[in-house]
Parts: sequence; C-alpha cells; structure tokens
Amino acid sequence: MITLLTDFGAADYFVPAVKGVILTLSPAVQIVDITHEINAQDIASAAFTLGACYSNFPPGTIHVAVVDPGVGSERRGIVVDAGGYRFVGPDNGIFSYAFAREKDVRVYALENSAYFRSPVSATFHGRDVFAPIAAHLSLGKSPESCGSEIHDYVMLDCPRPHHDERRGGIIGRIIHIDRFGNCVTNFTEREFRLADPVPRISHTPLTLHLAGHEITQFGTHYAQAERKQELFAYLGSAGYWEIGLWCASAAALTGARRGTEALLKLS
Amino acid sequence: MITLLTDFGAADYFVPAVKGVILTLSPAVQIVDITHEINAQDIASAAFTLGACYSNFPPGTIHVAVVDPGVGSERRGIVVDAGGYRFVGPDNGIFSYAFAREKDVRVYALENSAYFRSPVSATFHGRDVFAPIAAHLSLGKSPESCGSEIHDYVMLDCPRPHHDERRGGIIGRIIHIDRFGNCVTNFTEREFRLADPVPRISHTPLTLHLAGHEITQFGTHYAQAERKQELFAYLGSAGYWEIGLWCASAAALTGARRGTEALLKLS
Amino acid sequence: MITLLTDFGAADYFVPAVKGVILTLSPAVQIVDITHEINAQDIASAAFTLGACYSNFPPGTIHVAVVDPGVGSERRGIVVDAGGYRFVGPDNGIFSYAFAREKDVRVYALENSAYFRSPVSATFHGRDVFAPIAAHLSLGKSPESCGSEIHDYVMLDCPRPHHDERRGGIIGRIIHIDRFGNCVTNFTEREFRLADPVPRISHTPLTLHLAGHEITQFGTHYAQAERKQELFAYLGSAGYWEIGLWCASAAALTGARRGTEALLKLS
Repeated sequence: MITLLTDFGAADYFVPAVKGVILTLSPAVQIVDITHEINAQDIASAAFTLGACYSNFPPGTIHVAVVDPGVGSERRGIVVDAGGYRFVGPDNGIFSYAFAREKDVRVYALENSAYFRSPVSATFHGRDVFAPIAAHLSLGKSPESCGSEIHDYVMLDCPRPHHDERRGGIIGRIIHIDRFGNCVTNFTEREFRLADPVPRISHTPLTLHLAGHEITQFGTHYAQAERKQELFAYLGSAGYWEIGLWCASAAALTGARRGTEALLKLS
Repeated sequence: MITLLTDFGAADYFVPAVKGVILTLSPAVQIVDITHEINAQDIASAAFTLGACYSNFPPGTIHVAVVDPGVGSERRGIVVDAGGYRFVGPDNGIFSYAFAREKDVRVYALENSAYFRSPVSATFHGRDVFAPIAAHLSLGKSPESCGSEIHDYVMLDCPRPHHDERRGGIIGRIIHIDRFGNCVTNFTEREFRLADPVPRISHTPLTLHLAGHEITQFGTHYAQAERKQELFAYLGSAGYWEIGLWCASAAALTGARRGTEALLKLS
Repeated sequence: MITLLTDFGAADYFVPAVKGVILTLSPAVQIVDITHEINAQDIASAAFTLGACYSNFPPGTIHVAVVDPGVGSERRGIVVDAGGYRFVGPDNGIFSYAFAREKDVRVYALENSAYFRSPVSATFHGRDVFAPIAAHLSLGKSPESCGSEIHDYVMLDCPRPHHDERRGGIIGRIIHIDRFGNCVTNFTEREFRLADPVPRISHTPLTLHLAGHEITQFGTHYAQAERKQELFAYLGSAGYWEIGLWCASAAALTGARRGTEALLKLS
C-alpha cells in the first residue's frame, strides 16, 4: 500500500501523473490519498498531518510525502525505514514526527537513478523520483538499494513541553491550527490527563494560558463546555490537547499561531 | 466495498485516518469516497447526497456516513441492513432516504465494543467506532453481532408531496439546493411526467410556483429552455424535478431554501 | 484501470454515482481520479489536463472524461482507441491532445444502447452512458462493439508554433494557465532547448515576448531565477515551456490568457 501527501491540489494533472507512474510500475499496489491540500510549501503542516495518521495504516505501508519548495536544487531525496513503515520524499523535515516517535530510524539518500524516471524533470520529482522509488519499494526492493545510509537528515524543530520552575508550570507550544481554528498544542496525556470518569470538568484545578487568555474548561468533547462562549480545552484525536471555541475560531480569538507559547499551570 | 461520506474536508488527517483503520483490519476491501465536502454538520444534506447515489453501488456495499455533531454525547451509533446494503454511522437521521425507500429495514445499535478501536476518542468516532465496524462487516461479521436491534431510530422529516384541494394543486418542498443553485424539489415522476417524446416543452399545461415565481418551462435538459433568462424545470438525475436558471442560480433569484414550499398546478 | 476527469466537483453525488455504476458492472476494475475540479464546462482546460498525464498510465487504461455542456442535445458520445489507451466521453474536442499526438487514432460513435443504463437521463450521461461503456470496455468488449467508426469527430484548435520571417521569430500561444498563474506556452523542446548542463541560464541569447513583456531569464527550475521579481521561463513538467513569476502570478502581471500570443526571438 502506498499513501500520498502533497501540496499539489486537486485541480491539476500533478496527482494523477504520480499515480499513473506508480501504477505503471506496480499495477497491483493500492494507493490511498492522505491529502493534497496542504498549503503550498508548508512543510510543518505536512509533517503534522502525516504524523497524525501514518500509524493508522497497516505495517509495511509506504508513505510518499511531497511538499518540496527546494525541488530542482541540491536538496536530497530520502527513503526512511521507521516503525514498520517506509517514507519517501524530500529531505526537508517532512518526516520529523516519525523521526521523533519511532525508535529504530534508518534514512537512505535517493541515489540509485536506475529507479528514477528518465529524464528527471527539474520541477516534478514527485512524478519522476519519488513515485518510481515508492513503486520499486512496493515490489520488494530494499531501502538500502536506493542509496547509502545518511545520518545528517533534516529534522524540524519539534518542541517538547518542559517544566519551568520560575513560571510555575509546563511550557508548551501551538504546533498546528486546523481548518476550524482549533489550536493544537504539544501537550499530551503525559503532561496531564483527566480523571476517568471525569467528575466535574470545569472544576479541574488546572489553567492553560494562551496568548493572554486563560482557559479553565477542560473536557473530552465540545458538548461538555458549560460556558459556550469561552475557550475550551480537550484531548484531540491526534493525541494532543487542543484549544477550541464553540462554533468559532480559537485562533482568531486569541491570535495564536503555530509556535505560540502555551503555559499549563496548577492554579 | 466500503463507501465514505463525511463533512471532514480534504485537507486534514481525518479521512486518511479512517481509511487506514479500515485497511489495517480489512486489507482487501475497496474504499470509494462519496464526498467529504458536506457542509459542516449538515445532516440533511448528507442524507440527500447519500440517498441520491447509494443504490448505484453493488449490492452488499457498506456505506459509512459520518456527519456527527453529537459525537461524544449519548447519541447512538447504528448499523442498518436495508435494500441489500449496509449503512454505518450515527443515529441522527443521516440514513433517512434509505429508511424511506427500502422496505425491509433493520437497525442495530453499535454496542459490541470488541469491534471498536481502543481507546475510543471522544471526538473521532469515524476512526474509532464506525471505521472498525465497517471493516468487521466487510469481513463477514453480521449486523446482529454489532448490537441489539432497535426500532426507535431517528428519522429526518422527509416530506412527501400531497394534494391540496383548496389550493388546487400538489404541494411539495425544496429538499436540496446544489452548488449551482439548482433547487431540487420532492416532486418525482409520480407527480408528473412529460410525454415521451416531448412535443412542445414550453406548452405543457402545468405551472410550478416557487417563492412567488411561476415556472412554465418544463423539459428534460437545459438546452431546451426557450426563454433562457427564465426559470426552467427539469427531471434531475437524482429522480426529482429541479428548478434551475440558465448559467445562474435559481436559489439566488427566488430566495428559495431547503424547506421552501413548491406548488404544482394544472393551469 | 479506468480514470475519471470531470467538472463535477467533489461535493455532490455525481462522481460517486459514476463510480458505483462502473463498479457494479466491473467490480475488479481500479478507478483513479484525474480531477473533478475542471472549471465548469471548460473543455479546453480538460483537454490540456488529460493531455498532460494520460500517457503516465499503464497501456490499456480507459480514460473517461466528462466536461459536457451539450449533454442531452444531439452531440455524440465517442470511444477513442489511440496510443494503446481508450478514451470515453462526449465528442466535443476533449480528447484533442491525444488526437494530436497519437498516430493510429480510431473513433467510434456510442450507439449500442445495450451497454447504456436504462433509462438514460437527459442530464447525466456520465453515469448513464460513459460509465457503463467504460465498464464494458474494461470487461473486454471492443470499441467496435460500441458503434460505428466515425472520422468527423470534433477537434479543438491545438495551435502549433510556426516561424514568422517578417517578425523574426517563432510564434506560439498560451495554451493553459495553472492555479499559480504560470502561463503554459505551446513551445516544447522542439522549438528550443537549453544546453545541458546549463552554463549561465540568464545569458542565453533568446528572448520571449508575452503581452508586452520581454523574458530573458530561462532555466530548468525557479530557484535559478537570478532576478526574482522578473518573469522567468522554464521547461514545465508537461513538456511545454512555461512563464512564471517567483511567488506571484505571471498571468496577473502580464494579463495573458489562454490564446495570448508568445513570440520567441533570437536577440
């Protein structure tokens, strides 16, 4: 099985060209779209989206991710062997969430041009390099056969929450803002979890501080928010605590962006 | 075969997460997207869209539909056995068109948590409940094995046209407005059909009244409309009479919305 | 394998209805979306998009293309046998790029109604005519069995560059503008190719004239452009020279549209 994640959009010939190349080489493989609607050249958003769902796929799945502003330049292509999955794409940090989560990570530079389409266009490595590499992997070729192992691959800054004694809490960051304006923090159940079953959501002794706003409502889903017009925090389905606003955009209200600090305090 | 209909949009990790879970459990199943672009939480639109195409799929197809504003609350999940198809989703009326059309309908509550992903998140039953249920059904598990049969399932108000002697016609309603602004009524060929072959479309003795507008042009396709700037009624491909406007929006012109009354009169 | 290219959009029941009909007749066939986001009724854009990727698919692939403003009228449906592929759709020029490129082209009118769905709606031949025809072809039925061969099929004007002595250059045209505003010309490597490897891109003795603008930067990819705020020409992945503008729209800057003349001169 091969998945595709790109910023190509749905209107152009880019995505079907990639699929056609894969299916010509590997007719029996199953292709699943993750998304092609990543904002143009937004590597961090691509990395988050892939990180949020790659492990839902069967072991052995080959994840191809192409958000690639450096196409045509000297940036390398890589294949990654991690967590029972393979990842194919540019060496620009797009696989950072897998790098951060998986233990035994091996990364190989894409050097074996015998696997590439010929000629390789300077603007479309998705079709000419990454698609045929993925097809060859699906046919049983090894990551090692694609090129030599490297260790200096690019890793995005994936900030982890850390305790700050002086400020009396745990400092995290917004790592993603979804289409509804929900702000995804990097707090997980490691930083805090609600009692189960939750006794009185709104009376938890925690407060979360984001861009000058104090959040005191915590829960498992929106319908629990008692004060609908106030910010509400819940454990999102990607495994991170998110901050949302009932039928509105928490990002618009707070002005938070990716990278904005969030502070978790015992009040 | 499993189909998916949601309001998740194409940009986020929600749809691929659902697909990954299905394919992990049932690797050989074929997944077909109906749409993921239902307006957020618009159950009636989801029901219409599913109603317009579910029966085009092969018998035995499992239709998963997730437009689910009540996720995390007490609303039940259900599996429906009707018309040779199976339907999986929340019990909020999303399968109303199948309920209305099929004769032998059986509905089961989703109670057998052995089929669910563990843990079940409070915000993403598409991935954690409906996807694995559909996968298990595709592997031959029975609807009965999912939970106990229920009879008090939720049904949207699916209005049927009725004769009104006082007003001298048949009263129907707008049940859907499509992206082009065409207004889909609940009139079908049962209420009226054109002679075949159509002699002179514009001289049919019928009039259709919608939001203060009188429609006297009837036909089988747009190119027939003789007065291009006037409203035109045609039997749409979903089996309902629709009201459209040449290269423009009939909904914008008339102000009609879902639920607006339409009156069919012999003039 | 069957591909689909339409202007149906992703939100309505049109695309899944087509897929359901195909899969009911031919359950083992693989369906791949090219795009459903062609602008409504834009046959030329559909033709370009199909032309840019049809040959990436495996030989024997059946390409179904439905951008069909004439549906319901007297326009014919056709099946095309060309270049090892089959094409199914309306006879309105949508397959012009294949007609222009492939040598042994055979075209058949869709006359054998035994292959159609019954009844055929007047507004949805994608579901009722083209989908079942494609399914029958995928099951081994011959194009000849669909209807009689025709030779007067519709061909869009696909302009080819030509030398103009008086003006001292080669005259071409813009044939497509993509979503980023890049202007795709009909110049290919036949008209000019860069030395390989490229010595100094910006010092090539060519100039390209478009809508009053002179382009003197040529290269293989954007990162090469030395003067980022000026227009830049590169050989695009569809095989045509394109004119772009760094992080901006060349179409907006120049006012170029499909059909605008481009003049290539040795300076």
